[in-house]
Amino acid sequence: MALSKDRLIGRKAILLLLSEDPDMQLNQLKENNWKGCIGKVGSMDAHKVVAAIETAAKKNGIIESTIYRESHALYHAIMEALHGVTRGQVQLGSVLRTVGLSFAVLRGNPYDKEQEGDWIAVSLYGTIGAPVKGSEHETIGLGINHI
Amino acid sequence: MALSKDRLIGRKAILLLLSEDPDMQLNQLKENNWKGCIGKVGSMDAHKVVAAIETAAKKNGIIESTIYRESHALYHAIMEALHGVTRGQVQLGSVLRTVGLSFAVLRGNPYDKEQEGDWIAVSLYGTIGAPVKGSEHETIGLGINHI
Amino acid sequence: MALSKDRLIGRKAILLLLSEDPDMQLNQLKENNWKGCIGKVGSMDAHKVVAAIETAAKKNGIIESTIYRESHALYHAIMEALHGVTRGQVQLGSVLRTVGLSFAVLRGNPYDKEQEGDWIAVSLYGTIGAPVKGSEHETIGLGINHI
Amino acid sequence: MALSKDRLIGRKAILLLLSEDPDMQLNQLKENNWKGCIGKVGSMDAHKVVAAIETAAKKNGIIESTIYRESHALYHAIMEALHGVTRGQVQLGSVLRTVGLSFAVLRGNPYDKEQEGDWIAVSLYGTIGAPVKGSEHETIGLGINHI
Amino acid sequence: MALSKDRLIGRKAILLLLSEDPDMQLNQLKENNWKGCIGKVGSMDAHKVVAAIETAAKKNGIIESTIYRESHALYHAIMEALHGVTRGQVQLGSVLRTVGLSFAVLRGNPYDKEQEGDWIAVSLYGTIGAPVKGSEHETIGLGINHI
Amino acid sequence: MALSKDRLIGRKAILLLLSEDPDMQLNQLKENNWKGCIGKVGSMDAHKVVAAIETAAKKNGIIESTIYRESHALYHAIMEALHGVTRGQVQLGSVLRTVGLSFAVLRGNPYDKEQEGDWIAVSLYGTIGAPVKGSEHETIGLGINHI
Ligand SMILES: [Mg+2]
Ligand SMILES: [Mg+2]
Ligand SMILES: [Mg+2]
Ligand SMILES: [Mg+2]
Ligand SMILES: [Mg+2]
Ligand SMILES: [Mg+2]
Repeated sequence: MALSKDRLIGRKAILLLLSEDPDMQLNQLKENNWKGCIGKVGSMDAHKVVAAIETAAKKNGIIESTIYRESHALYHAIMEALHGVTRGQVQLGSVLRTVGLSFAVLRGNPYDKEQEGDWIAVSLYGTIGAPVKGSEHETIGLGINHI
Repeated sequence: MALSKDRLIGRKAILLLLSEDPDMQLNQLKENNWKGCIGKVGSMDAHKVVAAIETAAKKNGIIESTIYRESHALYHAIMEALHGVTRGQVQLGSVLRTVGLSFAVLRGNPYDKEQEGDWIAVSLYGTIGAPVKGSEHETIGLGINHI
Repeated sequence: MALSKDRLIGRKAILLLLSEDPDMQLNQLKENNWKGCIGKVGSMDAHKVVAAIETAAKKNGIIESTIYRESHALYHAIMEALHGVTRGQVQLGSVLRTVGLSFAVLRGNPYDKEQEGDWIAVSLYGTIGAPVKGSEHETIGLGINHI
Repeated sequence: MALSKDRLIGRKAILLLLSEDPDMQLNQLKENNWKGCIGKVGSMDAHKVVAAIETAAKKNGIIESTIYRESHALYHAIMEALHGVTRGQVQLGSVLRTVGLSFAVLRGNPYDKEQEGDWIAVSLYGTIGAPVKGSEHETIGLGINHI
Repeated sequence: MALSKDRLIGRKAILLLLSEDPDMQLNQLKENNWKGCIGKVGSMDAHKVVAAIETAAKKNGIIESTIYRESHALYHAIMEALHGVTRGQVQLGSVLRTVGLSFAVLRGNPYDKEQEGDWIAVSLYGTIGAPVKGSEHETIGLGINHI
Repeated sequence: MALSKDRLIGRKAILLLLSEDPDMQLNQLKENNWKGCIGKVGSMDAHKVVAAIETAAKKNGIIESTIYRESHALYHAIMEALHGVTRGQVQLGSVLRTVGLSFAVLRGNPYDKEQEGDWIAVSLYGTIGAPVKGSEHETIGLGINHI
């Protein structure tokens, strides 16, 4: 049940965010049978970050919005990614900080074995800091879940 | 006090881990006046991950080991990176999981302004999972601190 | 100072929530010298869950509202129960989720020894999920404190 | 995608623990096409609690041990249940406390819709306290995940 | 139910630690009907810090060791104090850090109203840092509970 | 790199809060080349506590507001101090509690070695409790960071 070297879903999801041409890279992934989408969100409200990612994933057909197990898988992947971004308390404005993030959602099977089925990766990259321009540093997060 | 587009320390620290030739990339960074090192650590003990990174950073002269403020900056950067890796509780074996990680430590000024001085980025990328081969998924973490 | 098998306050508080006739069961408990109350609350605000339980406990005379040590005991029991419900961050709407909960508050001495005095149990059972009908799963929590 | 009133997996998993005849109740569940197992574990090591539940679930065929997505689903359900038990830090002996727990693992589809597929519930009930006989109170936890 | 200005239990517990003559100050408190004790503990194990405080409190008769509700009150006060000391994860050696602490336990009624009964304060003050001499900074914690 | 006995920045920052004449004590510190300020803030919003301390520190010239590394050092020291105050979740009104706090910010080198440079201490002392007069107990927090 090893991870396939060529199909590292987390690595691919992060490289999408750090790429100089994310759209092209996303298209390549789609040609290789991955489902995925990218987007941006800036907010002092963690729930707006969650909503932006969920909306993008549903609108782009990454998850099937009428099936709760798919939303559930995505939600927990988002929350795990937010842990990397917030590093301690999953809070933004309530502790006087804000984020400006790119996000990617990627879906596919990263394992050699077909039975492992689909997994979902949510990656986040951007800045976190005070609500003052420039008072910020970079941040990253990755959440991975079976779907 | 904006982040310089060309000097995004977190992005560089993560790309080092995801690169196909990390040594070459590290050398390029050094030529551009960054200090940095890379390494690997696998363990069920979070303290061994901390120790491996601290040792590498000191041995490679990324931080000055006789000055506590430098160790302090590095320690908190490591702890922040571990939040991304562990996503909830900074625990490994005590909750029956293990990690296999690459790490990078990078030091330099990512801001336009010279007065911002040096910052340190600790990036972690690898797998986390049960202590059973293949029962694991990817994980990432990034901690950034002024030094 | 062992727990009395017949007076397991936590077990009783949970069974109250899962019972098909909670009112009858509550009356039985009262006849056996327990103080208790039950109620329902649905919200995206954790503070509204706290307030609903505190109000019910005071209105039903489970705690003496003019004595702070009683409110203090109840508050910490509620917070502990919320940990079971939220499993990580005691947050609801701020991470885009909502709860629909039944709650019970029970007061009495669950130990064999009389000197152990009164203890308080707060139990919560219901659903947690996205603010979308049906996008939810069950959740439970129990907090126990001396009073 | 509503939860089915008759198939509340969390409620059933908890009632198994609180039942006076858990074996009989488990058999009834099996007759109704649920997979499930029950067991007991006492320890100051959280990882031993995790291991006991994982072992029981695999040995009883609740999850397919050669498929990582199944172990992954179970692991996160266990961790969520442990949050209810520990209420703050998923730590036992390292903060000088110990648990004596019954556990149940239940698998099936709790939703009306067939497409929701299988879900897994891990319930924990018992005592937590100082490593001194009788210095303990009750505790409960429930983790639910799609599988 | 206001706090009495002259009987601020937390303030007194902290000043005991910061005092230049703690023994004298403790004696004065005892003359004023407070129960209290002081001690020191250095460790990489959080459970040894807990044990040292519990042992001192029992040996000095601050709590009645045969009554669980008293141990329970003390335990939670210790855990709350440890949150201030550790600031995020109640972990020491498992994240490669160590503490050298003074502690005080104080018992009495800090409120104007007699019915508020006894409360307990646990204060901690000392250093936290790497297991390397001098690589440390100060830390403090205070836990307060009704007893 | 030992802490200097006469220059314990954390101890001084806390004593400032517990002093009967904080202004006089602050003046003495300034005469001894410490930078520092004191203030008060009461709120159900953690972000207002953060803002009050940041504003005071900038207005009094404790940190240089045009340099992000100084704000960054202060922010993390505030967050660490808030862990001691909140003991678990850095939340106030969202879990129905409020604080009334004094705060101090102190800046200087607490180590024997000159190279350790400036450090910053944020201390908090006051009450935490229900939004009901008198339903509260004391709380303290200390955050220390290199700057
Ligand atoms: Mg996982
Ligand atoms: Mg930061
Ligand atoms: Mg307890
Ligand atoms: Mg869930
Ligand atoms: Mg309290
Ligand atoms: Mg520190």
